[in-house]
Amino acid sequence: MSLIVMKFGGSSVGTPERMQRVAKRIIERQQEGHRIVVVVSAMGDTTDDLIDQSKLLNPNPPAREMDMLLTTGEQISIALLSMTIHQLGGKATSYTGWQAGFITDDNHGKARIQDIRPERIFKALAQDQIVVVAGFQAMSADGEITTLGRGGSDTTAVALAAAIKADLCEIYTDVDGIYSTDPRVVKCARKINEISYDEMLELAHLGAAVLHPRAVEYAKHNNVCLVVRSSFTYNEGTFVKEEAVMEQGVVVRGIAFDKNVARISILGVEDVPGVLANVFGALAQNGIDVDIIVQSGVSVGKADFSFTVSASDKDKAIQVIESVRDAVPYRETSSEDGLVKISIVGAGMVSNPGVAATMFQAISELGVSIKMVSTSEIKVSCVIAAEPLQDVVRALHTAYGLDTEEQVFVGGPQDRRE
Amino acid sequence: MSLIVMKFGGSSVGTPERMQRVAKRIIERQQEGHRIVVVVSAMGDTTDDLIDQSKLLNPNPPAREMDMLLTTGEQISIALLSMTIHQLGGKATSYTGWQAGFITDDNHGKARIQDIRPERIFKALAQDQIVVVAGFQAMSADGEITTLGRGGSDTTAVALAAAIKADLCEIYTDVDGIYSTDPRVVKCARKINEISYDEMLELAHLGAAVLHPRAVEYAKHNNVCLVVRSSFTYNEGTFVKEEAVMEQGVVVRGIAFDKNVARISILGVEDVPGVLANVFGALAQNGIDVDIIVQSGVSVGKADFSFTVSASDKDKAIQVIESVRDAVPYRETSSEDGLVKISIVGAGMVSNPGVAATMFQAISELGVSIKMVSTSEIKVSCVIAAEPLQDVVRALHTAYGLDTEEQVFVGGPQDRRE
Repeated sequence: MSLIVMKFGGSSVGTPERMQRVAKRIIERQQEGHRIVVVVSAMGDTTDDLIDQSKLLNPNPPAREMDMLLTTGEQISIALLSMTIHQLGGKATSYTGWQAGFITDDNHGKARIQDIRPERIFKALAQDQIVVVAGFQAMSADGEITTLGRGGSDTTAVALAAAIKADLCEIYTDVDGIYSTDPRVVKCARKINEISYDEMLELAHLGAAVLHPRAVEYAKHNNVCLVVRSSFTYNEGTFVKEEAVMEQGVVVRGIAFDKNVARISILGVEDVPGVLANVFGALAQNGIDVDIIVQSGVSVGKADFSFTVSASDKDKAIQVIESVRDAVPYRETSSEDGLVKISIVGAGMVSNPGVAATMFQAISELGVSIKMVSTSEIKVSCVIAAEPLQDVVRALHTAYGLDTEEQVFVGGPQDRRE
Repeated sequence: MSLIVMKFGGSSVGTPERMQRVAKRIIERQQEGHRIVVVVSAMGDTTDDLIDQSKLLNPNPPAREMDMLLTTGEQISIALLSMTIHQLGGKATSYTGWQAGFITDDNHGKARIQDIRPERIFKALAQDQIVVVAGFQAMSADGEITTLGRGGSDTTAVALAAAIKADLCEIYTDVDGIYSTDPRVVKCARKINEISYDEMLELAHLGAAVLHPRAVEYAKHNNVCLVVRSSFTYNEGTFVKEEAVMEQGVVVRGIAFDKNVARISILGVEDVPGVLANVFGALAQNGIDVDIIVQSGVSVGKADFSFTVSASDKDKAIQVIESVRDAVPYRETSSEDGLVKISIVGAGMVSNPGVAATMFQAISELGVSIKMVSTSEIKVSCVIAAEPLQDVVRALHTAYGLDTEEQVFVGGPQDRRE
C-alpha cells in the first residue's frame, strides 16, 4: 500500500464533467489499495476572473488582500471536488492551506514554505478518507493567509509529498508526459519515460506548462519521485527522479528551444575590474533577465561581450548599457533579434565526447550559422536565426536517435483520450 | 470616540459602484472620529451561484464541504471591500471568521457561537485600521470551517459588537429603517425611531428582510444597541434597544401581517391527558410550524382546538392529525385557507386597556369577521379572511394614530436616495 499525492491543475477540474472524471480517477487509485492525498488548483479561469474583479476596484491592491481574494479559488475547488467524490461513493475531506498545516513567511504573493505540519492529514488518512488539499496557499506564523506565487500548486504537491514521505507525487495534466521535444514541431517526438531532476530543469521550457521549475527544484532537494501524466488517459507518463535510466544508444534526453531571443554585444570594453558586475548588475536592477553570456578573448586591454535577453527586453537593455557608459567605457554596441536558442539536454553527455560536434554538424548541414554557443555538463545551447527552426529541431531529433515511429497527436484532450 | 460595528448585506456590495459607495461611507464614519469594525456578507448572488454549482456535482453534499464552499463568498467580499477602501485612501485589513476569532460548535450549516476571541481585531484597531470581518462564518474548536446558518451575517455583527463592547451596531440595508407597517400597503407608514427588542421580535415579519430575529435575540441577551439604517441615505434609521421611548399619544408601535395562513380545527376531541402533546408533538416531528393555538372551552368531556399553519403545510398537517387518531380520538376536522394573521404590537399595550377593543371595532366596521384571536402582553393578533387585508391594515394604522403626513416612496434604492 503506497501513499500517493495526486495533483490536478485548473483545467483538469474546469467543468463539471472534468471534475467528475477527476473524482472517478481518484477513487480508482484509492481502490487499487493506496492512501491518497489530492492537491488541486483553482478551477479554469477562476483566478483570472477574481483578478479582473479586483482591478475594477483597485488597480494596485495590497498583496495581503490579493492573497485573501485569490485563495478562495482553490477553496471552491477542494469543496466541489470533495462533494463530487462523495457523490461517486468515496469518502473525502477537504483542507485549505492553513488547515493542511502549510506555514510560510509573510511575503504575500510569493511566500516561501517554512514548515508543514500534516497532523490533520494523517488523521484523515487513518480514517480511510481521501484528503483534498488546496494548492498554492498557506498561512504565515501570524495566521495571515499567504500564497506561494508562480507554480504554486505544483510546489504544494511536491512539498506535501516530501512532508508526508509519500511514495510518489503524480502531476496530472492534459498531456501524456514530457516529450523529447515539442510534438507540435516534431510529429515523431518521443515520450520520455524517465528523466533526472537536473535534465528536467534544463528542459524547463518543454515542461514549464506542466511542471513548474520551482517544484522540480523542491523535488530534487527532497528526493521526491514525481510522475507527469495525463488526467485523460491511463498512459504511464514521465517519471522525474534523481537517477533516470537512459535508453540504450541514446545520449540526448530532449531538445528544447526558446523563441524570441535577442543578442546584444558590447564591443571594445576597457578591461577594468568590475566591468561585468557593473553591466549585469545594472541590467538585473532594471528587471532584465539575461540568459547566455559569452566573453571573447581579451586583446590589447579590450574585450567583447555578448549576451542574450528576451526580444521584448532588447531596447531597454541597450538603454541600460548606455546609462552605465561612464563606469564601463566601451567602443560600441550591436544587437540582433529574431533569434532562437536551441538546446540539447542529457545527463550522459559529459561522458560522451562528440555530442556537441554532432549538433554543430547537423546545424551546419542545413546552412544555418551559429551565433553563440554555451555549454554545461548536461546541456549544449546554440543561438541561431529563428527562420529554419523547425528544420533544425527535426534534424537534431533524428541525429540523436530520438525519433519514434508513433506519431503524437496534438489536439484537444479528446484527441488523446484512449 | 465610539467603537462602531457597521454591517452591510450582500445587495449593498453587489456591484463595483455599490462597493465603492459602501467603502466611502465607512471611511466617512471613521473620519467622524470613530473606530470602525465592518461585517460584510457575500456579494449579490454569490451564495446562490455557489449552491447551484454544487448541486450539479452533488445534490446532497456533506454539510462540512458546503461550509467550505460557501464561506468563500464572504472571503471574496472582505478582500474586495478592503482593496476598495485602500483605493479611496483608507487603511483596512480583512479577516475571515476564523481569523476574527469566532469559535462555534461543529454543527455545520447552523453552528452556534461558543466564543469570540477578538485579539487580532483590537490589534488592528490600535493601528487605526478599519477592520473588515467576514459575516456568517466561523471555526470549530477542531479548526473546521463552519457557518452560522440563516441570518448569519446579522448575528456575526451583533455577536462581535457584544464581544468588543461596541457602542453601536449599525445594520445597513436598502430601507431607511423599520416602519410602522409595510409601506407598500400603507403609503403613510411611519418610520419608527426607537423600538424595544421584544417589539422588534414580535414585528419580525416587518423586519425580517433587514434584521434576522436570531440577531435581535442575541442583541437583547447581550444588550447591544442596534440601528437599522439605509446604505443609500443618511437618514437616522431605527434604533433597537431595551427601553424604547414611545411617541406621545401612541400606544401601538407597529402593525404586522402574515399572508398565506391556514386554520385547522379538530372538533369533538376526547378530553384525555396528553392530547395536545400528542397532536402538536406529531406536527413538530413532521417539520410543521404551528403558530396560534386556541382551545375553546370543554363541554361534556369533549374539546375543540384550532390552530394556524402556513397554507402550504395545511394538507400535510391534516394527514398527520389523521395518523394520530388512535391516540387522539376526535369527531372531525375542518380547515380553511386564504387567511391572514394581522397583529398590533406595542410595549405600552399592557397598561392601556381598550387597545384590543379598538382593533376588534376597526375590523368589524369593515364588515370583516374575526376567526381567531391570540394575545400576549405586547401583541394582539387576529386571523381574518385575506381579502380586504389592505383596508384592514390602513384602518388600524389610522385608528392607532400611526399615519404620518410624509409619503414613503417604495421603489428602487435610487428613488430613496437623498
